Amino acid sequence: MNALDVIRAKRDGQPLPDEQITWFIDAYTKGVVPDEQAAALLMAIVWRGMDPHELTTWTAAMIASGERLDLSSVGRPTVDKHSTGGVGDKVSLPLVPLVAACGAAVPQLSGRGLGHTGGTLDKMECIRGWRAHLEPDELLAVLSEVGCVICAAGPGLAPADGKLYALRDVTGTVESIPLIASSIMSKKIAEGTRALVLDVKVGSGAFMPDIDQARQLAETMVELGEANGVRTTALLTSMDTPIGRAVGNALEVTEALDLLAGGGPADLREITLALANEMLALAGVDADPAAALDDGRGLEKFRAMVRAQGGDPDVTLPTAGQRHQVTAAEAGFVTRLDARGVGVAAWRLGAGRARKEDPVSATAGIICRAKPGEPVSAGQPVLELHIDDPARLAGALEALAGAIEIGPEPPPPPTLILERIPGRTP
Amino acid sequence: MNALDVIRAKRDGQPLPDEQITWFIDAYTKGVVPDEQAAALLMAIVWRGMDPHELTTWTAAMIASGERLDLSSVGRPTVDKHSTGGVGDKVSLPLVPLVAACGAAVPQLSGRGLGHTGGTLDKMECIRGWRAHLEPDELLAVLSEVGCVICAAGPGLAPADGKLYALRDVTGTVESIPLIASSIMSKKIAEGTRALVLDVKVGSGAFMPDIDQARQLAETMVELGEANGVRTTALLTSMDTPIGRAVGNALEVTEALDLLAGGGPADLREITLALANEMLALAGVDADPAAALDDGRGLEKFRAMVRAQGGDPDVTLPTAGQRHQVTAAEAGFVTRLDARGVGVAAWRLGAGRARKEDPVSATAGIICRAKPGEPVSAGQPVLELHIDDPARLAGALEALAGAIEIGPEPPPPPTLILERIPGRTP
Repeated sequence: MNALDVIRAKRDGQPLPDEQITWFIDAYTKGVVPDEQAAALLMAIVWRGMDPHELTTWTAAMIASGERLDLSSVGRPTVDKHSTGGVGDKVSLPLVPLVAACGAAVPQLSGRGLGHTGGTLDKMECIRGWRAHLEPDELLAVLSEVGCVICAAGPGLAPADGKLYALRDVTGTVESIPLIASSIMSKKIAEGTRALVLDVKVGSGAFMPDIDQARQLAETMVELGEANGVRTTALLTSMDTPIGRAVGNALEVTEALDLLAGGGPADLREITLALANEMLALAGVDADPAAALDDGRGLEKFRAMVRAQGGDPDVTLPTAGQRHQVTAAEAGFVTRLDARGVGVAAWRLGAGRARKEDPVSATAGIICRAKPGEPVSAGQPVLELHIDDPARLAGALEALAGAIEIGPEPPPPPTLILERIPGRTP
Repeated sequence: MNALDVIRAKRDGQPLPDEQITWFIDAYTKGVVPDEQAAALLMAIVWRGMDPHELTTWTAAMIASGERLDLSSVGRPTVDKHSTGGVGDKVSLPLVPLVAACGAAVPQLSGRGLGHTGGTLDKMECIRGWRAHLEPDELLAVLSEVGCVICAAGPGLAPADGKLYALRDVTGTVESIPLIASSIMSKKIAEGTRALVLDVKVGSGAFMPDIDQARQLAETMVELGEANGVRTTALLTSMDTPIGRAVGNALEVTEALDLLAGGGPADLREITLALANEMLALAGVDADPAAALDDGRGLEKFRAMVRAQGGDPDVTLPTAGQRHQVTAAEAGFVTRLDARGVGVAAWRLGAGRARKEDPVSATAGIICRAKPGEPVSAGQPVLELHIDDPARLAGALEALAGAIEIGPEPPPPPTLILERIPGRTP
């Protein structure tokens, strides 16, 4: 086998034979194929794409680069959720314990946030003592005892993805549906879950602003899951405006706890329950997640999970020292609150990171005091910026230029769940 | 400036601004931009191409990565030739001294052969004592005194090309007209010649089998030359069958000397004189190269050039220890003698190299005893293989499968000079 033959075949638009794909991924992971050859192949894939058969082989090779967890000892049906990332998307925090409270086991192996969408681990780490890094046997123990776990995906899961992702990040080859799909699905399949619900975000604040591309990504990932024995369903959900009111790590934990306590914003409740129902259906569990939310079983499960991972569920969450209000320029209704603008502003305040080595602020972020459809008077706060480092305020305000629109009439109520893409498994 | 921005712009089909191109080439040459980012950009260029303005800037940046020789002290008009590489293409050997004998100065800075087409330096090095590597002042001295020089392009000329070429070679990004054109022209422009004739080969044995692509490459290179103040003309010439009868290093030197002595094959004479006439016209020299060939002035100039570079023009050239005849299966006329098959066979016998570190054999090669249009009887030799290493014979014979065709009628006489592409300079 020869890396040059593989690159040239893909460059010329030929589908790659299975053995070339398997060899290339293995040789790249082991360092036999150098970065420059992998970079050339990745750009050729951005150009030419991969057909479903190639992509299945490519993803299987990524999974085979490491271990695939065996969760059969857990004794309950396993199901997980993946979101492509949204602004204010703290859904995993209430969803994971809620589904566990209903009787399924949820092994959520997660990554850190990068760019303007936050990461679940960064949010959970605002809870003092909570540990993201668990050894495989510890992970299994928490999952078996509590019924759910949120933790970092260890380096043994799909190590090819870790290497490829870092390379894509510096070579302009992130934006490719087969490469995105194989990256997400290789890790989710390797974590050992038997079922998976994908939340593919669409809109200004999403990685995929365009619904046709988002649908194509969702369909590709659903096919990959099913081809690997993971029952998979995708929802396309709107990401034009932040989910809930809180954007920023500790702020989002507080909002997630509000939801688990039976309150919280309506849109966060709607999307959490929609995903919970999909997860329970795929896991074959007949239960009502709304009841588990309202009667506190979800909250109890969240507290148990935090405790099992070394955290104190009664700890007071940190808050920012300074606040800055962005107010309505005129009276009327908020007609638009741009997810991307708010996401980038929160990122610049310190809630997110530009490079994976960067630290994140627990307290920086934004509270949306008024959301689309809500009335405002002139001078009334629309966004409340929580400031950890005042030097970052100017950049955040710049990102908010044009993010707020106010008009005389309320906009039509937004549709949160745009489409549902079920797997082929009955 | 940021390499990622440059890669993404090209990936998305946007033309690159001048400052991005100039920065990227400079940063890559200095090692600030790593190979994997350059590889991704090269593949994006293979995909998206470069418009004429981008390509001019790209080539200028490659030239600016090193020195541009100043040949003004030579006192005669300078003109050079570049061939994209053919089988049996020993044209530079008689052409360079012939044009010098007519009164122009020819600074031929050349590279080594790679793949199935040989390199001029490899051929000249069969002459004992001859040195390909000259310091810049030595180069100028030979050029001034003799009127011509054939030597290796030093590492100071377009060093960006050396680095980019090595990277293209391992990343499947060789086959791109703008990248080929900028590679060839950056070195030729940096060598300081004021005029240049390009011999762009078309056919089975050429790098560009297709005439439309060859024309596009020729037009691109002519434009680049003119844009950089080098008067440039291109000829598209046929490379379906080997030039002359000899393929292999010392064998080709012998044939070149035959031509300079007033003999030699008709096709080699035709193409040499056609290129000489173009070169003299561009240099503004009114002379008859055919006369200089017939009266021995070209040969005398060749001998002077060899002596000036340490070689002995009277040395006996080495010959191979073994020969193997490939004979005609039937009587008739040779209707086809495939340049690629013969080129690959000679390469496998040791006349060429697969990697630039490999040595080449001086004596291995092939003599075409019968060429298209010539009659043969059954059992008469068509190809005479000159064997340095008998272990290589089987591979060479394999490459010759289907290379010889014999039919009852002679084929129409071949056209050697297919097209002429003049520059815009009057």
